[in-house]
Formats: sequence, structure tokens, C-alpha cells
Amino acid sequence: MNIYTQPVQELIDQFSRLPGIGAKSAQRIAFYILQSAPEEAERLTSAIQTAKREVKFCSRCCNFSSEDICELCLDQSRDLNIICVVEESRDIAVVERSGEFKGLYHVLHGAMNPIEGIGPDQLKVKELLNRLGDGQVNEIIVATSPNIEGEATALYLARLLNPLGLIVTRPASGMPVGGDLEFVDELTLGRALTARQRLTDGATDAAPV
Amino acid sequence: MNIYTQPVQELIDQFSRLPGIGAKSAQRIAFYILQSAPEEAERLTSAIQTAKREVKFCSRCCNFSSEDICELCLDQSRDLNIICVVEESRDIAVVERSGEFKGLYHVLHGAMNPIEGIGPDQLKVKELLNRLGDGQVNEIIVATSPNIEGEATALYLARLLNPLGLIVTRPASGMPVGGDLEFVDELTLGRALTARQRLTDGATDAAPV
Repeated sequence: MNIYTQPVQELIDQFSRLPGIGAKSAQRIAFYILQSAPEEAERLTSAIQTAKREVKFCSRCCNFSSEDICELCLDQSRDLNIICVVEESRDIAVVERSGEFKGLYHVLHGAMNPIEGIGPDQLKVKELLNRLGDGQVNEIIVATSPNIEGEATALYLARLLNPLGLIVTRPASGMPVGGDLEFVDELTLGRALTARQRLTDGATDAAPV
Repeated sequence: MNIYTQPVQELIDQFSRLPGIGAKSAQRIAFYILQSAPEEAERLTSAIQTAKREVKFCSRCCNFSSEDICELCLDQSRDLNIICVVEESRDIAVVERSGEFKGLYHVLHGAMNPIEGIGPDQLKVKELLNRLGDGQVNEIIVATSPNIEGEATALYLARLLNPLGLIVTRPASGMPVGGDLEFVDELTLGRALTARQRLTDGATDAAPV
């Protein structure tokens, strides 16, 4: 005999399928929902249904969007000459929060991973190439993750886009700001040393030595 | 301008309202749902809807149940003379997993907390008294949490039920099995020492010294 009645067990099971939610959390959420007001559960289910129904991919940058072209792509105040390529939609929020980028985005929906069979055809690379036809874009920042898959993707894109006369860049690797030198891993520190920057008048010169 | 399109933001907001889910987890879950198959999202929403629609309280023990009387209360193999009182439905699973209890349960749906205005009337105490009318029950184990609210509830129930000729017990406090003496807090160790048990022939005698 199950300890929980079937609909409760099913609720727990469905929540424990979500990423980052273990058996205990799923149980806690299930009981929270069972005890909450019907309207609250209703708001959750309708948020899921609305999102699944209305959200599609922006036909330009492949970000999630409720419209054919997303708000970011339609924003006239942004720099149309530069595209920041990211792996996932959620990475756009990370770059936006830095406040250092005002151009457009392109979401690859993954990174190259030959072992799992993810190559350029599984990513939104063709869609990126299509955006470059009008010659307006002159720089591509490849902001994929600094891991094996992300680096491989960046290298692939550099080899693909450099011959088209585009400047392909990558955000610098180095010591995290506010971190402690003691805790920086040797690979990151090695890169940070190679890309060391000259200090002039107390300010950091952006050019490497 | 929001970084996320409105339905995505709403999905993140609804998930971050759930207990134990912060902004980052909610975002991760939202993107997982957006990228998952429509059937998977459908299974989640229908689990929520079914649970909210079908699950009610067992009219006997106040546990969550799909029927008027829950499976545990209907289980003929259980000991009808003893009731284990717990704060929440989820606590039943904890007691069941111990394998040391074969009686019935009663869910109070909370513990006494005068500051938050939770007294006996806000708990399922009346429902517990109603179950004792036929004289079949002779022991009540009050398995509320070993914190201030749980102890207060246990004391209240003891004062209420002892005059009815019932044996009111409480699970022992003491050192956690498999734990390290070094990490046992002084209050728990104090109780464990007070309730120390005689070792005879290498086995623990259940009776206190």
C-alpha cells in the first residue's frame, strides 16, 4: 500500500521530475499546493499552460518570445552592429544584468557536444548565418560557457565567421571580481596571467601587455 | 523592459512562490518546462488539477485522502487500539518508514502557536476526541515535533486525554542513531541522559533506569 493516496503520489512524482527538485522538495511542494487556496494552484497551472501555448522562438534571434520577433530584436535603442551569441535564453538575462552590452543576441539552444551528437546542425547556427547577410553586423561576441563544449562552439564559430570578414570575440577569462586569489583554480589563473593587463595611473588599461 | 517575455516571467514568478524554490531554481524550472514536450507540461498541470479536485481530508484521521475514509483507516491489519497523532500528513510517511508503528494516525494540521493565533480550535483536536468515543483506543502517541510548538501541543493533549483514562505517550528524545556524540546539542544530550536505559546482556532494556 502506498503511504500517499494516488493523486498525491502523482503530484509528488510530477514535481520530482523537474530539475533541481528532489523527493523531499517535491513532497513539500505537493503538500503546499494541497493546502493552498484553489486560486493559487489555478494560477500555477494557467501560467504553465499559457507559457506552453504562447511562447515560441523569436524568428530572428531564437530567444523565447510571445511574438514572431522578440522585444529585444525590436528595440530600436540597441546596437545593430554587434551580436552576442549565447547557449541558452537564460544566458541573455545574465549578460543583460552586467550592463556592459547593448547589442543584439542570438541563442544557439545548446553547445557543440559530439558525444551526445550535438553538432552545428542541432544548434541555431544556420539562423545566425542568415542574420549576417545584410552586412550590418560587424562583430560577434561568442559568450558560450567557458567549458569544453562552450570553447569548442566558440572555436567552430570563429572558424566559420572569420572568413566572412567578421570580428569574432570572446569574453575574457580571468579572476572573478570580488573573489579571493587563493580560491582561483590554476587554469583560470593561468589564463588571467597570460591575458594580464597594464596598470596605468591606477586604472586598468584594457589592452593586454 | 523585462528581459523575459511576459508569459515566461509569469511562469518564473509562479514557481518562485512555491516553498524552497528561489529565483534561480524557478528560472531553471521555467526554462525546462518551456523546452520540454507539451505532454510533459500537460502531465504536471493535470497532476495539480487532479490533486486539487480529488484530494480531501479523511473524515476519520484528517489525512489527505481521495475517498471519504483513507486507506490507512480502512486497513484491517492495523492496530485499532493505538493512535499516533502527528502535525502534518507528511509526518505519517516518516513514522511509516520507521516500521515501528502499526496503529492508526490522526493529523492535527499544525501545532499550537499562541503568537500566530493557533490554538486547539484551529487544530483537528475535536475530530480526535470524536474518535475516542467508542473506547477502542487505549493509547495516544503524540508524535508532534520536538520543538516549542510541538511540545506545547503534546502537553495540551496529555492534559486533555489523561483524564479520559487514555495512556498518552511521546516518542523518546535522545541521541540520533548513527550520529556522533560530539555533535549532539546539550539539551538533547541532557534528555538522553535523564532517560538513560539499562544495558543487560549487551541489549538495551527499553525501561528507563
